[in-house]
Amino acid sequence: MALVMSCWWRGRFFFRIFAKVAVQSEIMSILLVIPDRKLTHLVAELQQQLPQVPIVVWPDVPDPDAISFAVVWRQPAGSLTPFNNLRALQSFGAGVDNILVDPLLPKLPLARIVDPDLTASMIQYLDTALGFYRYRFDEYINAQQTQRWHPRSRRQLKAVTVLGLGELGAAVAMHLSQQGWQVSGWSNSAKHIDGVNCYAGLAELPLALAETDVLICLLPLTSTTNNLLNSETLAFCRQGVIFINVARGAIVDDDALLAALQSGQVSAACLDVFRQEPLPAEHPYWQQPNVLVTPHISAVTNAQTAVTQIVENYKRCMASLPMFNLIDQQRGY
Amino acid sequence: MALVMSCWWRGRFFFRIFAKVAVQSEIMSILLVIPDRKLTHLVAELQQQLPQVPIVVWPDVPDPDAISFAVVWRQPAGSLTPFNNLRALQSFGAGVDNILVDPLLPKLPLARIVDPDLTASMIQYLDTALGFYRYRFDEYINAQQTQRWHPRSRRQLKAVTVLGLGELGAAVAMHLSQQGWQVSGWSNSAKHIDGVNCYAGLAELPLALAETDVLICLLPLTSTTNNLLNSETLAFCRQGVIFINVARGAIVDDDALLAALQSGQVSAACLDVFRQEPLPAEHPYWQQPNVLVTPHISAVTNAQTAVTQIVENYKRCMASLPMFNLIDQQRGY
Repeated sequence: MALVMSCWWRGRFFFRIFAKVAVQSEIMSILLVIPDRKLTHLVAELQQQLPQVPIVVWPDVPDPDAISFAVVWRQPAGSLTPFNNLRALQSFGAGVDNILVDPLLPKLPLARIVDPDLTASMIQYLDTALGFYRYRFDEYINAQQTQRWHPRSRRQLKAVTVLGLGELGAAVAMHLSQQGWQVSGWSNSAKHIDGVNCYAGLAELPLALAETDVLICLLPLTSTTNNLLNSETLAFCRQGVIFINVARGAIVDDDALLAALQSGQVSAACLDVFRQEPLPAEHPYWQQPNVLVTPHISAVTNAQTAVTQIVENYKRCMASLPMFNLIDQQRGY
Repeated sequence: MALVMSCWWRGRFFFRIFAKVAVQSEIMSILLVIPDRKLTHLVAELQQQLPQVPIVVWPDVPDPDAISFAVVWRQPAGSLTPFNNLRALQSFGAGVDNILVDPLLPKLPLARIVDPDLTASMIQYLDTALGFYRYRFDEYINAQQTQRWHPRSRRQLKAVTVLGLGELGAAVAMHLSQQGWQVSGWSNSAKHIDGVNCYAGLAELPLALAETDVLICLLPLTSTTNNLLNSETLAFCRQGVIFINVARGAIVDDDALLAALQSGQVSAACLDVFRQEPLPAEHPYWQQPNVLVTPHISAVTNAQTAVTQIVENYKRCMASLPMFNLIDQQRGY
């Protein structure tokens, strides 16, 4: 009996090894669907860490059935439908809204990159933007154009509201609280963060927007947050509020923001993200004097971190383990 | 004998009291020699704290012999000579170079304001300027003028050199070291600051200037530091260094800096101080694209702190006690 058992186990073991090797040799390729970017460096990095795995760059896919794993960023709608053996999707960045927008997206697990450098980079960008407004660099840069010397005392900025209390938003809120800011936060579902006055849900949005000197947007783009900042919600803010958007352009109704910037309801805006990127040359934001445009640089994923997490999630996917940093596709983040 | 002694002492005591009251009732006025500023608020604040003391605003001085104490800032040369009973001078700010420049300055104790808020304000200004360059706000602001979307990775800024390790310079150097910068410092006399690579004296200046990404000037203006940064010393810096001057304009040879900004030896400059202030409208700094001009706002003395220290030093002066924050007039700081 012991011998039979042993043989049965051994047979099963060898069968599994054999099956696994057979499957892997056929369906084990990684597909990169990241249009409009030079991917030479990324391909080389992945190839170095996964020397046995074919790395295929969309749209040049010789054998669609060999694709098991796709790294995606702003993929064209429907571009993932031809891959019948695809097991999982990996966002190339922290966001996934640009991926979920595809109505033909296969219903597969989707993971994102969580980069601790990204948080540090975002915090530094925001500290810089806050100092920029506190010390009136915006006004002095405009004054420099007309050779005008006009010293003024610093802006009295004390209260900040962070919209979005996810990974990045919560870290930013905590940091600003430690720096002495009066911090309020708002999120879809209720949160508790030490030192942060947390509000949740649409009903409490007016409370989060009132009585703040600086409004920072770190929301994910979902059907709820699309155009969330519009003429109605911007009117809940204190007159002269400063607005910083480092999340997604489509969270803001651009016409409403431009009107608020012109009326003084919003005294200045620092915009790093836009509904359409690159921001079209004819867009009025470029020439609005109280707008600072930066080209989506507040937090760029560290390439090395991205490669490490892609490789790790690919291995977990092939081993039928749950990937790290999975997205809840119902919620959209 | 004991009785005689007692009477002698008592007589001397009463004489001194009498003399002191007599002197104080005559020579106790405070003179403010702070041209071109609205002093209504300062006079009111001082008057509130010293209700018995006449506060006199130069040049309208009815009784020059009643002046015992002068608060000065950029006084015209010789303006303090008519005051025979003047005992002490108090700078209205942290600097004294604008006072010592007067060849007819009476040889009297001179104190300055030491404002802890000043240090915090300077550190925040510098953090903002460093972030401004790290995130290429300078380039994006120029790009915005021509509606140009041109994202670039952050500037790799790691090493900073602080020129001047006095009250402010040492605090800044320590702060930047704690923030993860590789910090070098340079001062006239040798200093030791934890985490800071300290150099001293003119012979070591080239060492302090080499291998740095950002050069921050926090030197006092003295005969040694006047024009210290000139074509010869700027050439010791790494090509493309970023220069921040928050000390005094006259430390820099303006023609040499402009040439270095045009050649790329200095890639960008943030200038808060100038040889002549307000910076004249025709000065080339205004229109140099890689210069950010701010109108001497990096650290402005808190008015309340200044009043408190003026009142304290006035009382100490009248009580023949040494003032706080005295200047060594030989060294000039």
